[in-house]
Amino acid sequence: MKLVRHGAKGAERPGLLDKQGRVRDLSGVSDDITPEVLDPGKLADLARLHFEDLPVAPMPNRLGVPIASVSKLVCIGLNYKDHAKEANLPIPQEPIIFLKAVSALSGPNDDVVLPRGSKKGDWEVELGIVIGKQATYVSESEALEYVAGYTIVNDVSERAYQIERGGQWTKGKSFDTFAPVGPWLVTKDEIPQPQSLGIWLDVNCERRQTGNTNDMIFSVERLVSYLSEFMTLMPGDIVCTGTPAGVGLGMNPPQFLCPGDTMRLGVDGLGEQQQRVLAYDPLV
Amino acid sequence: MKLVRHGAKGAERPGLLDKQGRVRDLSGVSDDITPEVLDPGKLADLARLHFEDLPVAPMPNRLGVPIASVSKLVCIGLNYKDHAKEANLPIPQEPIIFLKAVSALSGPNDDVVLPRGSKKGDWEVELGIVIGKQATYVSESEALEYVAGYTIVNDVSERAYQIERGGQWTKGKSFDTFAPVGPWLVTKDEIPQPQSLGIWLDVNCERRQTGNTNDMIFSVERLVSYLSEFMTLMPGDIVCTGTPAGVGLGMNPPQFLCPGDTMRLGVDGLGEQQQRVLAYDPLV
Repeated sequence: MKLVRHGAKGAERPGLLDKQGRVRDLSGVSDDITPEVLDPGKLADLARLHFEDLPVAPMPNRLGVPIASVSKLVCIGLNYKDHAKEANLPIPQEPIIFLKAVSALSGPNDDVVLPRGSKKGDWEVELGIVIGKQATYVSESEALEYVAGYTIVNDVSERAYQIERGGQWTKGKSFDTFAPVGPWLVTKDEIPQPQSLGIWLDVNCERRQTGNTNDMIFSVERLVSYLSEFMTLMPGDIVCTGTPAGVGLGMNPPQFLCPGDTMRLGVDGLGEQQQRVLAYDPLV
Repeated sequence: MKLVRHGAKGAERPGLLDKQGRVRDLSGVSDDITPEVLDPGKLADLARLHFEDLPVAPMPNRLGVPIASVSKLVCIGLNYKDHAKEANLPIPQEPIIFLKAVSALSGPNDDVVLPRGSKKGDWEVELGIVIGKQATYVSESEALEYVAGYTIVNDVSERAYQIERGGQWTKGKSFDTFAPVGPWLVTKDEIPQPQSLGIWLDVNCERRQTGNTNDMIFSVERLVSYLSEFMTLMPGDIVCTGTPAGVGLGMNPPQFLCPGDTMRLGVDGLGEQQQRVLAYDPLV
């Protein structure tokens, strides 16, 4: 099942994709794709609906973040071997955790806005894990029971803010629009092999990142289990599982985002995102 | 005005303190102390109520986090000169930012629970700024317009997780119950001088931290303005402004929290918190 939220920013309505790829509106069934809807029992109820009886949403239409009320965006640093190599950093002994501000959440095709004076905006395509059940101290073997499904996240970063401005990575990861999520929340039954998904990103039609989730240092199960030792994962929380090689910072010489650029990114089975890059201007 | 949320965890009701220090129930006026209630106009409406006409809440009663639906807990590292000195770290050139998971939020007098096997639990009394209006790129001179008020935060930390487990501080800052907030949200009209507040913390009746917010490296105005360059601050967000000297890690030899310990902490004009320290045990 592919769940979506469609409509204007702040007024998204719940929906799902039918076999023809059309958005069917779920407003008559559920107020929104809230964390509560991600409970396994509730998802099973939705899957039993006759999709063809639901109204087709008008197209074209904006998509929002496919989950409402995300309480945490938990990110893993350096989780692909090829990315650790390009960054000239050692393979981590255990997962590196940081948080991205939830105010950075953005629709999958919304514009990405660079902060004032930004010179080092960068891209990071990532597999996002969407949590379905509250998780504290869960083992690796049971970790997938706590996962509702998967989505794509572009972990947009400002490298100068992240690295050159003192302290912790959060500073370069949290600007508004720096967390495009979607297009869909794909329930886990459709992704039986999360550790063998192709993952890629283009900037202005040039391929920048090409990877596969089989290059991850720490697997989906390991990450969910590990994180649950340090914080309780809540339904609707999104775990961003790290990015493969090919970020702008790793290029020689480094290349960064410019206003006018377009990013396109995807993960096998999870669809695609596309964002224009804009400069910040509160007057527009 | 001193706003509170009283009642069992997850079922808190809004209230305020009257002149006699009793909790007056606000359920008939507002569903909860939501981010929307922190808008300056809404706060002014509450201040105009005749408090003596509101029902007195039964005592004794648990207090919750005084704001419902906090979306971000933004923390500042090393913001007191004496604490930077005890940590043997240079005075930061600009504020160090990290985020604490909102799942760590806890009532001001709720038990603090140490993770399994934790050996290096530590305390940090902090002045918390509660945001009242959405803030992006606000100047220092206008920063206080975006502040609803102040509260106390104990930025509980597991130093081994924070420092010895690879990567970013978030890992040692985010366990459930590691963010006691309250007892009250004190509106800013009652705290005209936020840069001259005494701040203290005891462990088992021994004074561990004694400081004053006049020792802060970056002021309340500077922090709100600075943060708003890196992320949009939302109503209800809490900014934890750093801790003075006297944390366990800074002692010689270092001393850390044990199950059975009691922390008591306060900030002038903002009341006091008290927490028992427990070991994690999912069976209890």
